[in-house]
Amino acid sequence: MNSTIEFCKMDFLKEKLRGLDTDLILIIADLNVWSLYSKKLSLLNIDGKKILLWKAPDGEKVKDFENLSSALDFFLSRNVHRKAHVISLGGGATSDFSGMVAALMLRGVKWSTIPTTLLSMVDAAIGGKVAINSPQGKNLIGAFHHPENIWVCDSFLETLDEKEMSSGAGEIVKYALLSQDIYNKVVSEVEVKSLIKDCIQFKEQIVTEDFKENGIRKILNFGHTFGHAIEKEYQLPHGIAVVWGILLMDILFNDGKLKTKIYQTIENLKIELGESPWLNKEFPVTSIMTYLRKDKKTTSSELIDLVVLNEIGKAEFLSVSFNEIENKLSEYKEEIKKLCSI
Amino acid sequence: MNSTIEFCKMDFLKEKLRGLDTDLILIIADLNVWSLYSKKLSLLNIDGKKILLWKAPDGEKVKDFENLSSALDFFLSRNVHRKAHVISLGGGATSDFSGMVAALMLRGVKWSTIPTTLLSMVDAAIGGKVAINSPQGKNLIGAFHHPENIWVCDSFLETLDEKEMSSGAGEIVKYALLSQDIYNKVVSEVEVKSLIKDCIQFKEQIVTEDFKENGIRKILNFGHTFGHAIEKEYQLPHGIAVVWGILLMDILFNDGKLKTKIYQTIENLKIELGESPWLNKEFPVTSIMTYLRKDKKTTSSELIDLVVLNEIGKAEFLSVSFNEIENKLSEYKEEIKKLCSI
Repeated sequence: MNSTIEFCKMDFLKEKLRGLDTDLILIIADLNVWSLYSKKLSLLNIDGKKILLWKAPDGEKVKDFENLSSALDFFLSRNVHRKAHVISLGGGATSDFSGMVAALMLRGVKWSTIPTTLLSMVDAAIGGKVAINSPQGKNLIGAFHHPENIWVCDSFLETLDEKEMSSGAGEIVKYALLSQDIYNKVVSEVEVKSLIKDCIQFKEQIVTEDFKENGIRKILNFGHTFGHAIEKEYQLPHGIAVVWGILLMDILFNDGKLKTKIYQTIENLKIELGESPWLNKEFPVTSIMTYLRKDKKTTSSELIDLVVLNEIGKAEFLSVSFNEIENKLSEYKEEIKKLCSI
Repeated sequence: MNSTIEFCKMDFLKEKLRGLDTDLILIIADLNVWSLYSKKLSLLNIDGKKILLWKAPDGEKVKDFENLSSALDFFLSRNVHRKAHVISLGGGATSDFSGMVAALMLRGVKWSTIPTTLLSMVDAAIGGKVAINSPQGKNLIGAFHHPENIWVCDSFLETLDEKEMSSGAGEIVKYALLSQDIYNKVVSEVEVKSLIKDCIQFKEQIVTEDFKENGIRKILNFGHTFGHAIEKEYQLPHGIAVVWGILLMDILFNDGKLKTKIYQTIENLKIELGESPWLNKEFPVTSIMTYLRKDKKTTSSELIDLVVLNEIGKAEFLSVSFNEIENKLSEYKEEIKKLCSI
């Protein structure tokens, strides 16, 4: 069930593709990544293999039914067979999308992924959750489909802008809070790049225990319930929205006790958080509650599963009613209003 | 992994739904079935449960991206949660489609199915293969997602027209050829209805052995490779096209040795086969080959897996090149031309 994870130089990727047991490779590449790296990677010409390329529009935009249908049409009209192998080249949106294409084409073909952003290296590429978005929310339409290989080349990070790096580092804040080991490394100010392996190993271990997310895997959603709602409401980068989600959870369900430590990791990971989008304004409770009610983690019409953290490395699940959340948002109104980047 | 299969009276269906462990039931019903039976079934009002209804356009038409997206939007915009339970009410197209909705919504919710056609009772409802069609062919986009319950009420067959009954019986021809027991019953002229259970049990047993169709399950595709191509080319009912596919396989790979027995089952099952759509014309080789090359059973750009039958109950797999198939179609040209319903 597990993916093979390898750290490798960019120059070796062509060899990796050559080694796949198939005569047909279907590359789904992020448009920007392709224009920056296609020449260097030279993946379109491999002896004995037919290579097809579908370029994905920038970012989350690719994750809708129109693109899914268009990519599947593109490949299916070119005589795809069951041993075809899909390759994702890009960030989390590209791998979420490529995994969906691989999951649904002929009821599932194999796939491998080459994450090119910090966020996708530490999170999206790992664990086999694939999805597209619906008008009602992020990743509401999806499947579980493990990639065969995850090839991590951290030199892709050299062309990543500050916002993208901050977004990836935002997801590392989550790992640092869930794992004492990762927290210790963050506090000792190691380079961000050197944390990639730790985050992947931490996530892989949890996913192996609980692939279909019936139990322990749920802790990886820490900060994500509010995070997704905030991301949607303010069109923020995913990892940044998750950091706000983490800070919010700490206020609502932990009396802000981890605040100092959270800010410490934010600082050490050099995250450009900026001011909260609702600074000095009312927090948009109604709108956020609407997103929450549509979240995948709801288990009945009245309840949602939340991950609560009382100390570093000690996550707990809480089944909370929407009423209780709404009351808490009102109770901590002033604290939330004051939430800022410092 | 297995589904619970129950034969029950129509009046008991409401009780079955009431017994589901959920507070939210999402019914996907074939438009025609709904207009014929909704009053009698009275499924929209069950104490303690919220029931949502999405009506599916008639037949195969529902199985495209537009309807998939529309059904998912409909449910997701009404606050669906992970414990929601999808109910399919209709024939094979409805259950293929409903299973896809259940498979993809929030990365998978449970579902159950109430097959209302003979074809779906003996085939489509069993085994967890769900799919939509693509412009390139039938069921090319899909997943494996087992229904929790299959509730078979054979009184739905009372409103089925002759064409639909023949199509369902066409699939029973396949079972009769794959299983000596079922063949014996068909030869002894039992009533078609009484074969439903045997077909379901035969299929369930095979599916249990090989859910993901890596081996033995492939025998269930007997007659289907050519069948799907013929179905698409001539817009025939599925089961009828499968019968033509079976007859064609017997000519091409078995020197027509089972012909008499095949015609015997067709007669005993009261199938209105009609003349072959290509009677006294050239068989459309080029067009059929194009469909074959797009079939899911292709394993490389040159090969396709076929199921070949030398005697009743003795299926074999053959990996055949497209060239060989094309040569055979030309070699047996005259026999194919003469293929008819007698």
